[in-house]
Amino acid sequence: MRRLLFASLLTLLAVPASANDIVLRGMGSFHVGGRIAEVKGKEVRTIQRQPGGPLTKLDPNGQYMVEQMYVQFFQPKNKKGKYPLLMWHGGGLTGVTYESTPDGREGWLNMFVRFGWDTYVSDAVERGRAGFANPDVWTDQPIFLTYQDPYERFRIGDGAGSWNSDPAKRRLLPGSAFPAEAYDNYMKQSVPRWLSTDKAIVAAYLELVDKICPCVLLAHSQGGTFGFQVAEQRPDKFKAIVAVEAASPGNIANAPKLKGVPVLQIFGDYVDQHPRWSHFKKLDMAYGDAIKAAGGTADWVNLPDVGIKGNSHMLMQDKNNGAIAELIQKWLVSKGVVD
Amino acid sequence: MRRLLFASLLTLLAVPASANDIVLRGMGSFHVGGRIAEVKGKEVRTIQRQPGGPLTKLDPNGQYMVEQMYVQFFQPKNKKGKYPLLMWHGGGLTGVTYESTPDGREGWLNMFVRFGWDTYVSDAVERGRAGFANPDVWTDQPIFLTYQDPYERFRIGDGAGSWNSDPAKRRLLPGSAFPAEAYDNYMKQSVPRWLSTDKAIVAAYLELVDKICPCVLLAHSQGGTFGFQVAEQRPDKFKAIVAVEAASPGNIANAPKLKGVPVLQIFGDYVDQHPRWSHFKKLDMAYGDAIKAAGGTADWVNLPDVGIKGNSHMLMQDKNNGAIAELIQKWLVSKGVVD
Repeated sequence: MRRLLFASLLTLLAVPASANDIVLRGMGSFHVGGRIAEVKGKEVRTIQRQPGGPLTKLDPNGQYMVEQMYVQFFQPKNKKGKYPLLMWHGGGLTGVTYESTPDGREGWLNMFVRFGWDTYVSDAVERGRAGFANPDVWTDQPIFLTYQDPYERFRIGDGAGSWNSDPAKRRLLPGSAFPAEAYDNYMKQSVPRWLSTDKAIVAAYLELVDKICPCVLLAHSQGGTFGFQVAEQRPDKFKAIVAVEAASPGNIANAPKLKGVPVLQIFGDYVDQHPRWSHFKKLDMAYGDAIKAAGGTADWVNLPDVGIKGNSHMLMQDKNNGAIAELIQKWLVSKGVVD
Repeated sequence: MRRLLFASLLTLLAVPASANDIVLRGMGSFHVGGRIAEVKGKEVRTIQRQPGGPLTKLDPNGQYMVEQMYVQFFQPKNKKGKYPLLMWHGGGLTGVTYESTPDGREGWLNMFVRFGWDTYVSDAVERGRAGFANPDVWTDQPIFLTYQDPYERFRIGDGAGSWNSDPAKRRLLPGSAFPAEAYDNYMKQSVPRWLSTDKAIVAAYLELVDKICPCVLLAHSQGGTFGFQVAEQRPDKFKAIVAVEAASPGNIANAPKLKGVPVLQIFGDYVDQHPRWSHFKKLDMAYGDAIKAAGGTADWVNLPDVGIKGNSHMLMQDKNNGAIAELIQKWLVSKGVVD
């Protein structure tokens, strides 16, 4: 009998999994949001879609699908999170932020899937696999970061002037945890952004939230700003929010709406010395204080204060990204959103 | 003793997996390719990166990382493919082509991972998570497909004039296998493309091949064209090529270089009635014939001839996508690239 049980157990297990494997019930992707935009009165062009192909007419007039966003999901077999976990990236970036780090280690996507979260990583409107609208619909030009910009601005190097085209002459912040040897790969993750699309981005995030939530949100930088703005409009949909260096919070007048949503805000190292990040930190702390004043929970962690040091703005890619993921996971457990 | 063995087996298996689960040794992503481009002599602008944020200078002059490509990989525990499987998408699309179908079924990515292939899905240069270069580096305008264009051009509807803004009045090809009820979601996968970037795309694919191969290539439409062009330059790196409706092949003068690479070409339904696709089909068949004339293997499958009917240009998303995946897998087994 035992032999039989043993044998049938082996049969059931199509593939024996070991502790280091990622076992998924499913994985996939979808788009949400979007609208049909109309373009009129433009000239018809003749183009060749590929070398050797026939000449074809390109009539730019007509309807276009624009302002959708992309979401990829991973559903672990050992589901522990009580709700789906949404991961929203920062400005000029995509969901790749949470995938492998620039130096090829596991990112927070893998870590939180391993923790047992059904994880939804998105590319906001205009970024990455969301696509972008044509210049007749979005009339402003996108902006592009220079190769050196994040090095000086994201607390990798020691501020303005720390960049040098010779890697040996760059001035890294002392004790930096960023994988600076893979800065090239980090810059390959960078994508253009528009400054006119905030409304469309929020509209698509709202549609995602209405589709997937109640949920837990993990948002970074500009994604934190959008996260708070969306949560203010759907406070009942969020069971917890983790904002990692939100680049400004939501509207402080609306902060009391989040009194029922536990919020954790995290900032890395060298923030107070940097005008840009200390500015955002003050705004974010005031927003947290306003949530607390309304009777809510707004926790705050300066990572260096708890012994996690050297973190750049790209915390989830830094060499100690695992320690920060564990800190977040412990906080989520403490808030009762993990089985 | 048996009880002990049974218990320790259960302990070993951190997560019991069942036949329908996807068990991965690992998953992640990376970028390859790219170069530093220099922009000079442009005006400095003042911008506000987010509402409430400080005014900052945007100096467009400087160095930019451009022309990289994005690759996401999934490594199944039950590895059966002898080589990595690369999936390259078509024009105006990204790797999303191979993920969930527009109507939410499993796509070829999941299917081939389940078959046991280490699968690498990429976004070519300029598409999706690869990002795109600024207009000082790529000076031409990208092109955007209208909402109706693929419906009439990708053999979903019955050619020119089959589109109607009222879904009830659209003329679908008889017996179409495309999930036309989810056409909206399909169009959300569409991304802009440039007509000047072929060289950069091929350069990045070459770098990917040099990094990952020897490998098996599964390529669609414009990706098939790039696939043959790259294989002509690295014939020893490819153990098999499956080209799904390649939008023109490589350079026929180079076809003999592929005499050592088994090639399968697949075309769907209603191809001969459509001027655009019948044109490509003729070029692709001639290329296959040239491989065979050199002593190589170039198989050809018209899906309707083997009882797989109604396929649009987006075969991997059609309702019978599983039957086509099985046909491809059987061919790969027959070519000795599966354990």
